[in-house]
Amino acid sequence: MPSTRTVTLAVDALGGDNAPAAVLDGVAQALDADPQLSVLLVGPAEVVEPFAAGRDRCEPVITTEAIAMGEHPAAAVRSKKDSSIVVACRQVKQGRADGAFSAGNTGAMMAASLLVVGRIRGVARPAIASVFPSAGKPVVVLDIGANADCKAENLVQFGHMGAAYARAVLDVAEPRVGLLNIGEEPTKGSALALEAHELMRQHVPGFAGNVEGRDITTGTVDVIVTDGFTGNVVLKVVEGVSSTLLGELRKAMTSSALNKMAAAVLKPSLSRMKEKLDPESYGSAPLLGIDGLCLIGHGSSSARAITSALSTGARAVREDIVGTIAAAIAADTAHASG
Amino acid sequence: MPSTRTVTLAVDALGGDNAPAAVLDGVAQALDADPQLSVLLVGPAEVVEPFAAGRDRCEPVITTEAIAMGEHPAAAVRSKKDSSIVVACRQVKQGRADGAFSAGNTGAMMAASLLVVGRIRGVARPAIASVFPSAGKPVVVLDIGANADCKAENLVQFGHMGAAYARAVLDVAEPRVGLLNIGEEPTKGSALALEAHELMRQHVPGFAGNVEGRDITTGTVDVIVTDGFTGNVVLKVVEGVSSTLLGELRKAMTSSALNKMAAAVLKPSLSRMKEKLDPESYGSAPLLGIDGLCLIGHGSSSARAITSALSTGARAVREDIVGTIAAAIAADTAHASG
Repeated sequence: MPSTRTVTLAVDALGGDNAPAAVLDGVAQALDADPQLSVLLVGPAEVVEPFAAGRDRCEPVITTEAIAMGEHPAAAVRSKKDSSIVVACRQVKQGRADGAFSAGNTGAMMAASLLVVGRIRGVARPAIASVFPSAGKPVVVLDIGANADCKAENLVQFGHMGAAYARAVLDVAEPRVGLLNIGEEPTKGSALALEAHELMRQHVPGFAGNVEGRDITTGTVDVIVTDGFTGNVVLKVVEGVSSTLLGELRKAMTSSALNKMAAAVLKPSLSRMKEKLDPESYGSAPLLGIDGLCLIGHGSSSARAITSALSTGARAVREDIVGTIAAAIAADTAHASG
Repeated sequence: MPSTRTVTLAVDALGGDNAPAAVLDGVAQALDADPQLSVLLVGPAEVVEPFAAGRDRCEPVITTEAIAMGEHPAAAVRSKKDSSIVVACRQVKQGRADGAFSAGNTGAMMAASLLVVGRIRGVARPAIASVFPSAGKPVVVLDIGANADCKAENLVQFGHMGAAYARAVLDVAEPRVGLLNIGEEPTKGSALALEAHELMRQHVPGFAGNVEGRDITTGTVDVIVTDGFTGNVVLKVVEGVSSTLLGELRKAMTSSALNKMAAAVLKPSLSRMKEKLDPESYGSAPLLGIDGLCLIGHGSSSARAITSALSTGARAVREDIVGTIAAAIAADTAHASG
């Protein structure tokens, strides 16, 4: 049973294409929905003070700098110590918040997570995880872009981290973990996949063997592990194919007056379908392996996506995602060296 | 202008889940559609003789062995010298056919292409190309699975081969060639992608820089180059997402009597949409870089897919795909060493 302990999240008020409006709306809805959630709202005084004034469980944290979408991530994080992203992460490092969220510059949020909050002991490479909707149950896929080049040992750790996240936010007691590959047989695949398969078989509880690209949207496993290059390509292919198909569907449905009438009849069912397959349901992607919950939102996040991100984040904190990952990594390091 | 010279294709009558019925139907339709096409139909006497009897431009080639779907490709090709796949490829080697087609064991067709027909001089690694439908114009993607591990030099050759194929079958005079990567900037990506970007910029005419997973279905370039691991994952993600979305759409449209009526109104428009996005339009994937046209069909190929495969194949032969690739590879080798 998830506890309902108080959770504090630091939120970058300036993050995302629709900031600050979407962020503020998202925070307001998340606070309404979860009476045990507190928010440290990080940003310029004129944005965060009026919003926090007279509102319960929302404290303004005033910053004077901002990192723009196009800035070089590590350089910006190093030079702008009073930017909303860096200050949000600092709240986590100083123990004032359990987690930080930004829908701003993804690279800067990653860099700040690494440089300001730091890694969990024993984690070689933190990875970005994303929950993909599917026809069946949703699937945690990682790494979707933090590490373009990976070693087999990194993929083993991604397996531990992804399983911990699936347990925390998808209600799966014993997650099945698959390795993304180009054939089901253990003898198939790239040199990296072959080596990772063997190591994961030895080290990752619940390892279910190789899965293929098709399994991303069928929900045959709970977690799919891959390197950050393949994972990022997959993420964008899924987004691209979905948007192409839905776009063509929209064209077909509006191509005549009669079609429009028929489409109106179908609208409620189609909306439910889109809802089910909507990647915004979980609203953000955690950088797992960091010693605090660091959540990266999509630049185009809507208020709804931000509400989902904060509520999924609160849930992950209550399930002690960081402690669970730390324990799994520590146990496996012991196993590997012992 | 494509010539209409006579083209002879050797067809494995036993290849695919629906063989021989789908193969025979597909061949019959292809022969009807193209009066300059001849087929050498390769298979057991009881299948190929009755079909060829009294039919113009179809000659039976009798074989006594077959390679099953699950057999080890290279071993099967080496031991079963009289199998329909090996004999079909031998027709190409001996100059009796311009190309060979099989929807059977993919690995065996690849192995037979390599071992029996052989590579074009200078080609290090042949690659499987596939034409992906998109919202705009179709896109040639390669490698979709022949080489799980690639070097940057291989990707350069894939660029030449993919451009030649796009010119031959997609009617694009000067194909734009993209490198699949995880960011548009030349400084983004894996070590392989970084190195390939630089080499392709120097060696591949029409190189348009990096593209992302989203571009697979938007048609921003004509050719997308990637390693066979990523390409195979992408192929299966596209298939998986499409089938999940269309499946959910079908469910939504049949969830009530009223919905079914509305769906009936939309049916013609939706059929046109599915037609446009149907991966069967080109019906097969050539193994480019082989010294003859070797076409690999999907195991589940329908008669229609086989007809498309043969007609696309005939077109590629008339456009001299093999000669064009040979010339591009020879020119680039000269450039690289000179």
